[in-house]
Amino acid sequence: MSIKKLTFVDNKSINAVAIGGAVLGSGGGGDPYVGKLMTQQSINETGGVKVIDIETLPDDALILPIAMMGAPTVMVEKFPSGNEFAQLIPMIEKMLTKPVAAILCIEAGGLNSTIPFAAASKLGLPIIDGDAMGRAFPELQMVTFTLGGISATPMAMVDEKGNGCNYDTISNVWTEKLARAITIEMGGSAMCSLYPVSAKDCKKYLIKGSLSLIHHIGSIIEKHSFNAYQILVKELNGKHLFQGRVRDVERFSEGGFNRGVVRLEGIDDFASREAKVDFQNEFLVAMEGDNVLATTPDLICMFDANTGDPVTAETIKYGLAINVLGLPCDPIWQSKEAIDMIGPRYFKYDIDYKPLK
Amino acid sequence: MSIKKLTFVDNKSINAVAIGGAVLGSGGGGDPYVGKLMTQQSINETGGVKVIDIETLPDDALILPIAMMGAPTVMVEKFPSGNEFAQLIPMIEKMLTKPVAAILCIEAGGLNSTIPFAAASKLGLPIIDGDAMGRAFPELQMVTFTLGGISATPMAMVDEKGNGCNYDTISNVWTEKLARAITIEMGGSAMCSLYPVSAKDCKKYLIKGSLSLIHHIGSIIEKHSFNAYQILVKELNGKHLFQGRVRDVERFSEGGFNRGVVRLEGIDDFASREAKVDFQNEFLVAMEGDNVLATTPDLICMFDANTGDPVTAETIKYGLAINVLGLPCDPIWQSKEAIDMIGPRYFKYDIDYKPLK
Repeated sequence: MSIKKLTFVDNKSINAVAIGGAVLGSGGGGDPYVGKLMTQQSINETGGVKVIDIETLPDDALILPIAMMGAPTVMVEKFPSGNEFAQLIPMIEKMLTKPVAAILCIEAGGLNSTIPFAAASKLGLPIIDGDAMGRAFPELQMVTFTLGGISATPMAMVDEKGNGCNYDTISNVWTEKLARAITIEMGGSAMCSLYPVSAKDCKKYLIKGSLSLIHHIGSIIEKHSFNAYQILVKELNGKHLFQGRVRDVERFSEGGFNRGVVRLEGIDDFASREAKVDFQNEFLVAMEGDNVLATTPDLICMFDANTGDPVTAETIKYGLAINVLGLPCDPIWQSKEAIDMIGPRYFKYDIDYKPLK
Repeated sequence: MSIKKLTFVDNKSINAVAIGGAVLGSGGGGDPYVGKLMTQQSINETGGVKVIDIETLPDDALILPIAMMGAPTVMVEKFPSGNEFAQLIPMIEKMLTKPVAAILCIEAGGLNSTIPFAAASKLGLPIIDGDAMGRAFPELQMVTFTLGGISATPMAMVDEKGNGCNYDTISNVWTEKLARAITIEMGGSAMCSLYPVSAKDCKKYLIKGSLSLIHHIGSIIEKHSFNAYQILVKELNGKHLFQGRVRDVERFSEGGFNRGVVRLEGIDDFASREAKVDFQNEFLVAMEGDNVLATTPDLICMFDANTGDPVTAETIKYGLAINVLGLPCDPIWQSKEAIDMIGPRYFKYDIDYKPLK
């Protein structure tokens, strides 16, 4: 696969980024659309955002990830006020000793693949071509940085009303616990800055090129519409897991997450077969009867069979015709330590992770 | 009533402070015993704590309240590690622009009447003779400072494991919401520093002399044992509301609070009468049938009829013989604005506040 390097994002190219971000969101992370609108609004004033390679920065440069935390259903309805960055950055700078050199996407999937562009544009900073998941995951500690022993704190968090909170914790799992509780109190979503990290650590633990990748994926979908999934299967070494109509969606909000199950009735080549996909923000496990089709950390992605657009867990509707793809996760997620953190057993499934074949 | 001014607290006098603090705790705020032990341990090294009047400090001196937040049942079982102050003070100093001149008790009742002595001793700072409640209340915004428009933030909070959190909020009610959620996640209790305030504001809004008062109350109980309640009624202009045996205690933990009902069967002069006292951390409403005996913000205090010791909501037991006293609250709590904040209707009782007669 040959991917064109993304070096600048303007009002047009942010669209492909948002579409590709929804794909790597693996159904979760919130629709990147909201972040796209925020970015476009800001780019109207600033002109655009420079995308740079981490290798271009000196080891001691300070990189600051910006992200939204919360339940995707809330994030797409309770909009940021737009003043969050102006409150967030001074809060975190008070805790750090040097100016921020660049903004980072902590996850290249979902809303958090576009929100950092809005921040970078507002702050006049470049954004790094990479992320710390290569997809979206539901919990704060689920990043490559945790595997590298890098702390999520100091972390700052603000809501759209103007409330702010700083964290300094003993582990990234504790950061998740505390920040999740505050996110719920703040109304279900909050704007964060976390994992302030050196360029040196980024060079070691970053999943590189992921912004170029989502821009590439988005461009394929813009161009090939409902046929795009076939091209993506080839280009991304993925697997067409299922094609079907949504027969039923169970949804509930629990502990600040969206959880639920999507049930599909096969169509075309998959006629008279049935599949189900469980989600906790992201799609976690796809099954056909007792047969496991794919599990976290591999990506389970859904595409509207008519338009080719990626479908997120909160927008799935009864009757929608869907193509389900499995995409291989970054190899960093396949170690035992990583699987303990983000594999199916962490999410209480009695299933071992088996890489997509 | 003539109260001896408290000017110094040593290993002995902290005992009377702790007993008097349990009285003004009005059943809640946690048993001051834990804070007494912490203070005594520290005083063994430092010699004691100077108690000063706020008037002795220049207007611009910075006063820092220290308090524990949480459910009293948790606070008396999940002990502080002792390292909290060392973590807390640098956190708050980072957010403030000047050194702390003195420590303050935010509430003169419960655990928070003794914990600040431990902090003052450890930090080598004096403590102010006064507080911001004149008793204990269950929620963070329920202080005279809120009536004065003073912010609870910057607020810092740490747990015994080493997790820390700073707040900067838009109102004291929001601080309560966010800090309560974190307290629950931290395991039900946390050490805080909040309402950093100038001596000027203290001079205006403090309930003055409350440490001398609790020391005085404690000394009366030390001296007069089971007869002390009669002296306290006279000296504090209170009312003997009921004498009875505990027939039943309902208890449940909810939203980070201890809630419940104590039912009493009258003895001696109160024979064949019945009373009940509701609590949310503190005793809120005492009733005899439909007759309201006393409500918040007046203090409802219970004393062991055999020993004279104050009884907190978490230590009440079936069969205990109890004297129930009503003590008038500080007049600052009787304004409409104050009653809206801490009166019975705030706690969902369909009762108007009527001052004790």
